[in-house]
Amino acid sequence: MASNGKSSERQRIAQQRLRIIAGHLRKQEELDHRDIAAQECKAESNSNAATPNSMPRKRQEIMKWNGWGYSDSRFLFNKKGQAEFTGKRYRLSGLILPSLKDWFEGTFGANLQHKSPATPAINASAVHPPNLSESFVEELKATGIPFSHDTEDRVFRAHGHCLHEIFALREGRFGRCPDMVVWPNCHNDVVKIVELACKHNVCLMPYGGGTSVSSALECPPEEKRSIVSLDTSQMNRILWIDEKNLTAHVEAGIIGQDLERLLNESGYCTGHEPDSMEFSSLGGWVATRASGMKKNIYGNIEDLVVHIKMVTPRGVIEKSCQGPRMSTGPDVHHFILGSEGTLGVVTEVTMKIRPVPEYQKYGSVVFPNFQAGVACLREVAKQRCAPASIRLMDNEQFQFGHALKPQESSIFTSFVEGLKKFYITKFKGFDPHQLCVATLLFEGDREKVLQHEKQVYDIAAKFGGLAAGEDNGQRGYMLTFVIAYLRDLGMEYYVIGESFETSVPWDRVLDLCRNVKERIIRECKDKGVQFAPLSTCRVTQTYDAGACVYFYFAFNYRGLSDPLSVYLQVEHAAREEILANGGSLSHHHGVGKLRKEWMRETISDVGVGMLKSVKEYVDPDNIFGNRNLL
Amino acid sequence: MASNGKSSERQRIAQQRLRIIAGHLRKQEELDHRDIAAQECKAESNSNAATPNSMPRKRQEIMKWNGWGYSDSRFLFNKKGQAEFTGKRYRLSGLILPSLKDWFEGTFGANLQHKSPATPAINASAVHPPNLSESFVEELKATGIPFSHDTEDRVFRAHGHCLHEIFALREGRFGRCPDMVVWPNCHNDVVKIVELACKHNVCLMPYGGGTSVSSALECPPEEKRSIVSLDTSQMNRILWIDEKNLTAHVEAGIIGQDLERLLNESGYCTGHEPDSMEFSSLGGWVATRASGMKKNIYGNIEDLVVHIKMVTPRGVIEKSCQGPRMSTGPDVHHFILGSEGTLGVVTEVTMKIRPVPEYQKYGSVVFPNFQAGVACLREVAKQRCAPASIRLMDNEQFQFGHALKPQESSIFTSFVEGLKKFYITKFKGFDPHQLCVATLLFEGDREKVLQHEKQVYDIAAKFGGLAAGEDNGQRGYMLTFVIAYLRDLGMEYYVIGESFETSVPWDRVLDLCRNVKERIIRECKDKGVQFAPLSTCRVTQTYDAGACVYFYFAFNYRGLSDPLSVYLQVEHAAREEILANGGSLSHHHGVGKLRKEWMRETISDVGVGMLKSVKEYVDPDNIFGNRNLL
Repeated sequence: MASNGKSSERQRIAQQRLRIIAGHLRKQEELDHRDIAAQECKAESNSNAATPNSMPRKRQEIMKWNGWGYSDSRFLFNKKGQAEFTGKRYRLSGLILPSLKDWFEGTFGANLQHKSPATPAINASAVHPPNLSESFVEELKATGIPFSHDTEDRVFRAHGHCLHEIFALREGRFGRCPDMVVWPNCHNDVVKIVELACKHNVCLMPYGGGTSVSSALECPPEEKRSIVSLDTSQMNRILWIDEKNLTAHVEAGIIGQDLERLLNESGYCTGHEPDSMEFSSLGGWVATRASGMKKNIYGNIEDLVVHIKMVTPRGVIEKSCQGPRMSTGPDVHHFILGSEGTLGVVTEVTMKIRPVPEYQKYGSVVFPNFQAGVACLREVAKQRCAPASIRLMDNEQFQFGHALKPQESSIFTSFVEGLKKFYITKFKGFDPHQLCVATLLFEGDREKVLQHEKQVYDIAAKFGGLAAGEDNGQRGYMLTFVIAYLRDLGMEYYVIGESFETSVPWDRVLDLCRNVKERIIRECKDKGVQFAPLSTCRVTQTYDAGACVYFYFAFNYRGLSDPLSVYLQVEHAAREEILANGGSLSHHHGVGKLRKEWMRETISDVGVGMLKSVKEYVDPDNIFGNRNLL
Repeated sequence: MASNGKSSERQRIAQQRLRIIAGHLRKQEELDHRDIAAQECKAESNSNAATPNSMPRKRQEIMKWNGWGYSDSRFLFNKKGQAEFTGKRYRLSGLILPSLKDWFEGTFGANLQHKSPATPAINASAVHPPNLSESFVEELKATGIPFSHDTEDRVFRAHGHCLHEIFALREGRFGRCPDMVVWPNCHNDVVKIVELACKHNVCLMPYGGGTSVSSALECPPEEKRSIVSLDTSQMNRILWIDEKNLTAHVEAGIIGQDLERLLNESGYCTGHEPDSMEFSSLGGWVATRASGMKKNIYGNIEDLVVHIKMVTPRGVIEKSCQGPRMSTGPDVHHFILGSEGTLGVVTEVTMKIRPVPEYQKYGSVVFPNFQAGVACLREVAKQRCAPASIRLMDNEQFQFGHALKPQESSIFTSFVEGLKKFYITKFKGFDPHQLCVATLLFEGDREKVLQHEKQVYDIAAKFGGLAAGEDNGQRGYMLTFVIAYLRDLGMEYYVIGESFETSVPWDRVLDLCRNVKERIIRECKDKGVQFAPLSTCRVTQTYDAGACVYFYFAFNYRGLSDPLSVYLQVEHAAREEILANGGSLSHHHGVGKLRKEWMRETISDVGVGMLKSVKEYVDPDNIFGNRNLL
């Protein structure tokens, strides 16, 4: 990789530009006698104060090795058989959830006596020894970049959070793992690592937050070369904030919660809030085409990025301009967005920032049924007056939401009262087995928010929707970050489950929701699942031409000889059903290895050929060999 | 090109999807005994009523051969020395413009006695004879697709509207021309043409509206193969309108004015209104990443398209889903958008449509100087309350606008009065040589428009801006479509000129505007231009992170031995100046051949390599050999 040549070319161009600018300040004759020198910017270095970082190098210090999230936070059934959520990090932490047990046992036919506990700790002898490229390690040592081949470090970066990955970990089964982990501190470190990997034919797998649910992080079992996990978590500074252009230049290893917290300190935000934001990274968002809860205001990742820098085996790719929108051939940012770690490592990104909104208000609306709710969301989208976030859950999720209500606490009292209202069948004739709830979040100038709110509730009323208070809305969003912990609870008692999502035109939304949910139930039955599964969905995003739909499905696998196989078949059938009903392969989770088989159908042979041609040019030796996408 | 194989693969997938859907309607046992057949859709055919088409096959029936626009519309100085605009198509048509002569002579040091008329007609003997591939023509005849190798048809498609192209035509000089023109009627016709071109190694150049200003339509002089101009103008139907999803599926040859007029009949619009919309095509917009005047409401072309179908030498590329937003790897639509005719022919596009807005209101604001105007536009962008359109012209364009005011007519009376006000130096202390005008257009619900208007004028007031009435705003936009005709007037009297544009971050806007205008003046002086040039700019679009700036520059070339060479050098220097000041290579005009030299600098070597790898895969024999971009 001829980075020195590229660097001097960039310097030549910078020098030329400086000369042109200087021409306006001085007479040309003076310039001809003066040397305009362009120096490489030395902003990145160890001397910069490291960003206070949520993620230590040794993730195991705070994260679970075989489940979601922080070690100190989990759902469990206590000795009284009550559900509680441990730890101190979340609003739900330390609270009892009195209805969860009944809901869990009733929904899944589960029994707290029937336990399927996880292997308590990593059995190092079950992990294949590292296959290190000695020459690579030698040269890596010389760079001073930290690395490790400890078993725990390797295991932590051998997986994402697909069900089958977590299930295997809980059974103490380990497949192919990275042989080493390396922690670059800045762009230049990544350049060195990629150069060495190319030189020694080592497979690199970029690792951001580790939250992939597309098998993107699974190490290809057929990979014979050394696999090095390139962990970006220590490369996480905000390099500069530009208040004039409302942009920030950020290292790609920064985690969502840190990015927002740091920008908030200056009165700004990106507003990008994917459900995974406690752990996922900026580089990961770029690589997967991430979407955030409040995209209606802030946009999805492709709307948020102004400039991207990526290190590839061919060299560094980056545009030379920070202009807001250009016509300079096909947009190469879109060759990077969605490349899922197959082309290189995203190191730095310029993102748009916004002033932190003055005012925030939650809300909720109850609809008599799902169709009315969808029709309302469609009308809101048509009038282009969607709040920052508007999400419609189906009746099953509404019931599920009850199960998660905590015992009395000041925050939740009015909420409990409000919920009781819903449960009364006489409530304006709403059938509790049909009704659905939409949760809303408004942000902005207070006056505008209140106007906006009125407009949305007026539309809702046309579809039989009734405002159901701020608390219910707030609770809905608050649960966002704890939902993922529930699966680990289920897995203690023979219940496995997964979420998956799609985007679909408006006129197919209802059919798709109904058909996919029915298909899941039918497939589970056909494959011998003993108790009807939970099969539920919600509309989580609205667009001009369609919506994003998010499914949960979970079932009790007791009695099945090969539960994972049943699960994979059902999930496969669900995706076929989604595609048959006009839904996309994915709205935001991406393709990884889990959905590769549908790529030809999705973007056509010529589309696949285009992606392959780019891959073969950028990475002819498949250094970035995670085998995602193609 | 194995289109038959691809077609049966698509049928297999369609059949599978139908089977899945049918599973919800019938019992599975029934299905197993029933054949689900998926037939190829036969919607496209000659039987469909052709769209009433603004553009006949023989463009020369209504268009000028060596200038802009319609033959019946031009500026001229009549016997009294007054400027008038001929014809009946425009609001300005048939009107006298009493101030234009003085402005023209004063600004350029021109003299109506000094004429530089154009060659009156195409001299066929000056056009190289067609180089036809006999075998290609034979097989083409068998398809029944109309074609021609008449000299006029060939000349008409041999150029766009760069100054040097029009200058050459006026001098009766013809370079390389297409050898044939072919007029496909539908997607399947295009498939046949591309297959034949691949088989007989014929160079294809897609031709939409012919309005390119990037030398994209120049035929490469080194091209030895037969060049066939693939004119899409007869492939222009709206195939369907989907009111549920607010989309329309349209053939790519449709011209902007026809698309909007037809959609309006159903109460819809795309809202995409590039200044070239009278002549430019949907396929051309996709190929060049077009931008429209009202992008603040409707988005640019990349925001408007939901689905694209393109025929390439490798086959047809299209996604299988019309979902609103997806994460299925890098977005292949963005390999097509901006490909500038180098990869294939765009045949059909699904675009978003919107209900025609209830209400429209123009407006204008006078600022004491350009800096105040830019600061206001920046604040409007920051508050994300930009109207449908907001454009700020500099003082030179304000003066120029006066020159275009027509003689008394009922429409313009109050406008003339209003203008007189501006000319009075005592008007709130505004210096007539510093003041600038912003024109605005609001659209939407009447109530919201009035609120929105108030918000924008309130912001303007903070920057010393004063509301200057609807008429001035309306006049500004009305002139949009006649401005392009002015250059032809200038060229009758030794004046040549061009427009060019860029996008730039907010904090560089003022420097860029000032430095580029100064550079143009300096370069003209250095190169012996006798009279100082017109060098002027306006901010035509606002974004979160920057703006689009549009420059006009024109000069009197009398006394120069090689005016075109001087012009090209000045334009080149202007672009270097733009780049040095942080501006992009282009906001929306594209790269063509005119700006190829800066591509490496713009997207980096790796970016260029990516584009090349896609080109080499999709079109290994360079059938689409217009030599644009790379």
